[in-house]
Amino acid sequence: MTLNSFHTSGNSPGPDRCRVGILGFGTVGSAIARRLTGPDSIPSLQLSHICDRRAREKQARQPEAPHGSAPPAWTDRFDDLLASDVDVVVEAIGGAEPAVDYVRAALLAGKSVVTSNRQVIAHHGPALLALAERQGRQLRYEAAVGGAMPIVRALGDGLAGDRITRIVAILNGTANAVLSRMDASGCTIDEAIADACARGYAEADPSADLDGVDAGAKLAILCALGFSLRVLPGQIELRTAARLDPGAFEGARLRGGTIRQIAHAEYLRDRSTLVAWVAPAFVPLTSLFARATGPQNAAIISGVYGGDITLTGSGAGGEATAVAAVGDLVVIARDRAAIVPAPVLVEPAEIRGLSDHKLAEAV
Amino acid sequence: MTLNSFHTSGNSPGPDRCRVGILGFGTVGSAIARRLTGPDSIPSLQLSHICDRRAREKQARQPEAPHGSAPPAWTDRFDDLLASDVDVVVEAIGGAEPAVDYVRAALLAGKSVVTSNRQVIAHHGPALLALAERQGRQLRYEAAVGGAMPIVRALGDGLAGDRITRIVAILNGTANAVLSRMDASGCTIDEAIADACARGYAEADPSADLDGVDAGAKLAILCALGFSLRVLPGQIELRTAARLDPGAFEGARLRGGTIRQIAHAEYLRDRSTLVAWVAPAFVPLTSLFARATGPQNAAIISGVYGGDITLTGSGAGGEATAVAAVGDLVVIARDRAAIVPAPVLVEPAEIRGLSDHKLAEAV
Repeated sequence: MTLNSFHTSGNSPGPDRCRVGILGFGTVGSAIARRLTGPDSIPSLQLSHICDRRAREKQARQPEAPHGSAPPAWTDRFDDLLASDVDVVVEAIGGAEPAVDYVRAALLAGKSVVTSNRQVIAHHGPALLALAERQGRQLRYEAAVGGAMPIVRALGDGLAGDRITRIVAILNGTANAVLSRMDASGCTIDEAIADACARGYAEADPSADLDGVDAGAKLAILCALGFSLRVLPGQIELRTAARLDPGAFEGARLRGGTIRQIAHAEYLRDRSTLVAWVAPAFVPLTSLFARATGPQNAAIISGVYGGDITLTGSGAGGEATAVAAVGDLVVIARDRAAIVPAPVLVEPAEIRGLSDHKLAEAV
Repeated sequence: MTLNSFHTSGNSPGPDRCRVGILGFGTVGSAIARRLTGPDSIPSLQLSHICDRRAREKQARQPEAPHGSAPPAWTDRFDDLLASDVDVVVEAIGGAEPAVDYVRAALLAGKSVVTSNRQVIAHHGPALLALAERQGRQLRYEAAVGGAMPIVRALGDGLAGDRITRIVAILNGTANAVLSRMDASGCTIDEAIADACARGYAEADPSADLDGVDAGAKLAILCALGFSLRVLPGQIELRTAARLDPGAFEGARLRGGTIRQIAHAEYLRDRSTLVAWVAPAFVPLTSLFARATGPQNAAIISGVYGGDITLTGSGAGGEATAVAAVGDLVVIARDRAAIVPAPVLVEPAEIRGLSDHKLAEAV
């Protein structure tokens, strides 16, 4: 399949519509495609290309495009996408490698990029944002943290007027579905994982979710946005939730609470010390976190001037992630010359993890 | 006091700092000034001018500027502000008139504008945004709705990828402080108002808060952002909370709930019908709204694709509003050429209010 296949998309694009190419047609990529071509499609956005290494097979399973609309061109070659006239590439591959190379290449080719990839942003976000700025293009990543919960925008823009001191959050919808299921039903973790898989909230191997690797990358991104700190995911202490048993939930219940996977970051500015960890933690039953069930995400952001801000929203599944990615596309289409500045980050003098108690406390 | 007084601010502004003029030095304006000149001042922002009709008297009460920083110039003449070199005017006067004329004049003079004025935005937002766009300047108004809770950004940008169907919210921190006080203490509304005044959450006459006029204007703004609907505040049915007595709270408690001032908007797209009202409403004790106490705001935003998103945050007082306004200033300083597009609005075929039951239900 070559660039020639793009010729099928010759119809009707208005000159001011933003042309979108999706890279990676999995759960997230296909949800974004449905959103861009379905009944609530967005006038300023045109899905013009889909690139997936199994393009032929996946294209064959797609329904016919609605009458009158130009169907997207499919390709299995990333170079085709780079050479095409798309304005924005949506990177929906996942995983740090090779996605970071694709994002860099897209920016170098003069495309803006929207990504849901927390590993890419956590490890390479500052460099990629600087590259985007030099290229006069945008890199947006609301979908990388919090699913449909707009926490990237809330921290980066809405709360830019405060001095943020603490972020405590549930950032992994899969782990929350598993733990809240154990909590509600008294089942084992394997039964809860099977249930989450059946509902589409977990992959067959959710270890990156339960071990905290996914939430740790997201927390590193939030530390950059909220505290202007350069933190790599490997610097954040992780404790796995994979070994929780029903007895742990019984014990928490006796103390008037339950257990959630909590991502916790607190910046002690005067000592230049960041305390950051992801761990299964005790949360009181009355807390925002205990009320987050299924694939929900939740966050409490504390600022010196505005006090606490809370956010909740759906944190797993293609639809929720697609809402965030499509929101970024709408914002780019509105103002294609907008600047998303690379953050000016400092390194904290010290990064601490959990002190040595058995079960962390959320707040 | 004339333009000459500006000469005192000649020191040290870097060429790339964004010069800010505050119009109206009341609760909000003075909180913004403290934020811009205090220990957490923001490097990209310089408070260069303050305009207030009682400038001489208010300036005399200000502390000395910190050593080495240029103090802002004071004036009682708006024309001085227009003729000055400020990049952004922060309108913090309040009330529709004459603030709208000042906002318009500032945009015409080539300034960007940040405002906390819900009446100005609810009545004149689309025209002013169109004017700002023509002028190549920005009009931002995060502080007009929700205090420190970043709901304008969440609805306008973060959830732009969803199709919003319903917004239910507590949008007036003063009314919430009064009602939650009655709820907690069993006191009369006059006692609760006196308490809110003592804590700085209410003015001596909080009738615009309790009658729903303030929340109605905010709800009209959210209908434009969330539904792309043109709704004037006068089209939203308001029922006052000013006549609530302790017995109403006792009755609600017996039903497992309490009473909050709720702003409710639901858009039935297929019938082009908006249901919108502000009223004291029954809320279950387990709901987000019952948990909002004191000057808190809270919102549940429902979308077809992302499900429910919730937000809470401090909704009254100068500090919370200043966080939102300063966030807007930071965003303007980052990208002075950014476009804040005027929304393309349609009129709903029908606007309905509450059906005729005595106490509204929140959701």
